[in-house]
Amino acid sequence: MNKLLDERLVRKIKPINLLILDVDGVLTDGRIIIDDLGNETKNFDVRDGHGIRLLTGYGIDVILLTGRSSKVVDHRAKDLGIKEVYQSAYNKIEVFEEILRKRNISSDNVAYVGDDIVDIPVFNRAGFSVAVADAAVYAKKAANYVTVKRGGRGAVREVCEMILDVQGKWPEIASKYGLKISG
Amino acid sequence: MNKLLDERLVRKIKPINLLILDVDGVLTDGRIIIDDLGNETKNFDVRDGHGIRLLTGYGIDVILLTGRSSKVVDHRAKDLGIKEVYQSAYNKIEVFEEILRKRNISSDNVAYVGDDIVDIPVFNRAGFSVAVADAAVYAKKAANYVTVKRGGRGAVREVCEMILDVQGKWPEIASKYGLKISG
Amino acid sequence: MNKLLDERLVRKIKPINLLILDVDGVLTDGRIIIDDLGNETKNFDVRDGHGIRLLTGYGIDVILLTGRSSKVVDHRAKDLGIKEVYQSAYNKIEVFEEILRKRNISSDNVAYVGDDIVDIPVFNRAGFSVAVADAAVYAKKAANYVTVKRGGRGAVREVCEMILDVQGKWPEIASKYGLKISG
Amino acid sequence: MNKLLDERLVRKIKPINLLILDVDGVLTDGRIIIDDLGNETKNFDVRDGHGIRLLTGYGIDVILLTGRSSKVVDHRAKDLGIKEVYQSAYNKIEVFEEILRKRNISSDNVAYVGDDIVDIPVFNRAGFSVAVADAAVYAKKAANYVTVKRGGRGAVREVCEMILDVQGKWPEIASKYGLKISG
Repeated sequence: MNKLLDERLVRKIKPINLLILDVDGVLTDGRIIIDDLGNETKNFDVRDGHGIRLLTGYGIDVILLTGRSSKVVDHRAKDLGIKEVYQSAYNKIEVFEEILRKRNISSDNVAYVGDDIVDIPVFNRAGFSVAVADAAVYAKKAANYVTVKRGGRGAVREVCEMILDVQGKWPEIASKYGLKISG
Repeated sequence: MNKLLDERLVRKIKPINLLILDVDGVLTDGRIIIDDLGNETKNFDVRDGHGIRLLTGYGIDVILLTGRSSKVVDHRAKDLGIKEVYQSAYNKIEVFEEILRKRNISSDNVAYVGDDIVDIPVFNRAGFSVAVADAAVYAKKAANYVTVKRGGRGAVREVCEMILDVQGKWPEIASKYGLKISG
Repeated sequence: MNKLLDERLVRKIKPINLLILDVDGVLTDGRIIIDDLGNETKNFDVRDGHGIRLLTGYGIDVILLTGRSSKVVDHRAKDLGIKEVYQSAYNKIEVFEEILRKRNISSDNVAYVGDDIVDIPVFNRAGFSVAVADAAVYAKKAANYVTVKRGGRGAVREVCEMILDVQGKWPEIASKYGLKISG
Repeated sequence: MNKLLDERLVRKIKPINLLILDVDGVLTDGRIIIDDLGNETKNFDVRDGHGIRLLTGYGIDVILLTGRSSKVVDHRAKDLGIKEVYQSAYNKIEVFEEILRKRNISSDNVAYVGDDIVDIPVFNRAGFSVAVADAAVYAKKAANYVTVKRGGRGAVREVCEMILDVQGKWPEIASKYGLKISG
């Protein structure tokens, strides 16, 4: 790691203790996959999943927040140990405010990753707002950070690693896996 | 938005109140996905879906028109609130003319998005004809506009936003989602 | 169309009246898609399918020849009107020779599209041998022609159009669909 | 083949008689594909499969070693004639050491292909360690070799061919398939 992040981003990432993720286009590649029976399938990413597990292992909670609804999301959440999932959230900012109240935390402690126009109200409120590389252009303009990786193809992993890096967890992870950190 | 569209395109898009979409290669990525049981699956796009909902929210109808036939299309249409779906349309231009008669509208009011040679007769008749970025080369030559995005990967969203933009709906959408429109 | 094909290729394509296609990596994108139940799925391409129908509509037969075996292939063959399908063909050149004998035709009349080392013996025998754009490098070296498009993403369509073009069918197709042929 | 491999790699590849492969992101494209019923699907690659069969045909064993668990992996292993599969291997290096002991072989005889941080302890131990082209950046830094092809899209095939080439099997394969070796 040891990426050069500008100071403004570092200040935003330092206090984060909750990561809220949109699902379609962020944790997946945005494909809505449907078969003849109406059964829905989603494409997640193995390395995104490992990033989430690393993050939650260091005490940062992860919540899923999506405007659509499908059982797939519950299956993947369970697989990743994510216990809080909000589906059919037609008004994301309302659910976002509800989460803040319930946890009694400030928006400064929350990072949010999205990809579309409906995410912008949450971008404008979250302490650290992130758009994936292939997000809608105005979502990218509205976010604090745009990932190098695309949604469902490493974007979430990238955000997890940024948080772990800024919060000083990376040397411990690197040492655990026998990884040499270059100067 | 506020893309620079040439005047000819603006004149074509202004009167559009109906958007007709081919399915495979336009609303999907063109993959025909079949399993051992003969069950068919299609890859749609979450942001295309949101574009369609934005468009129909402003009173512009959306119709699906495809030469193939599969139950998947009905499932996705229902999901998007699309009520008119024409499948097994071996002769698309005939169905197109039938739609005009039934609605008593001019072809000037209809936009059509396609990707292949069978779409060209409809391109030659629709008020505003669009080929997706990865359409067959002669389909691209025959269309009024070629999208930047590929079929099933944002092409339909792009067309929805063009229509909303030219018809002056974008400032309202932008304001609804707290989006700043740059100069 | 009217692509500039060198004379050697034109001489090879002129006598073709049978097109034999490998399946995985040629008619599909090479993905072997398996689920928990062992059910197999394949990704075909809508425009490849239309190319095959155009070709067979002009009396050129299409045969599928694959070393693997799955029911998916039969479903897609039926969908495309392909009646001759050879699966589990561990020795492709033997099946190829059998096809020639049964039909009493010369190898000069047969085009073959493949993507891997097992296809090379057939490449060395077919009148017109084609490797897809993403074929193994030695398959590409051994073929008469390498498509611009990838397997399962337009390669077969490209071959169908080349054959129709060289054999003088394109003006009729273009006229049927209201397509203007440039230059 | 006859690629120019540097001498250090050649010395590492020469003694290899066992190839251990991670699954997600190496033998697949890293997509974790889940449907409404919780059924899991994986995308493998037809040419990777043929590479594995070529390799095992020359007496080099292949083992799958993955931290996740799904029945799909057993189906694909069976399809490829792979008899040893380790799933739910939360600590890969432990399983790796166990494999060495059971077979009474040196780590110098084992090649390992991975894509993520959890693979690095095994990279540091294996005789020949390979990261796929789209592996995590620190996995690529830690490996002896980084493939040109991506995981689930030819990376495993590339490794199989390197081993066969360095161990002098390629001329026989080339001759079997009527392949001319240049230069």
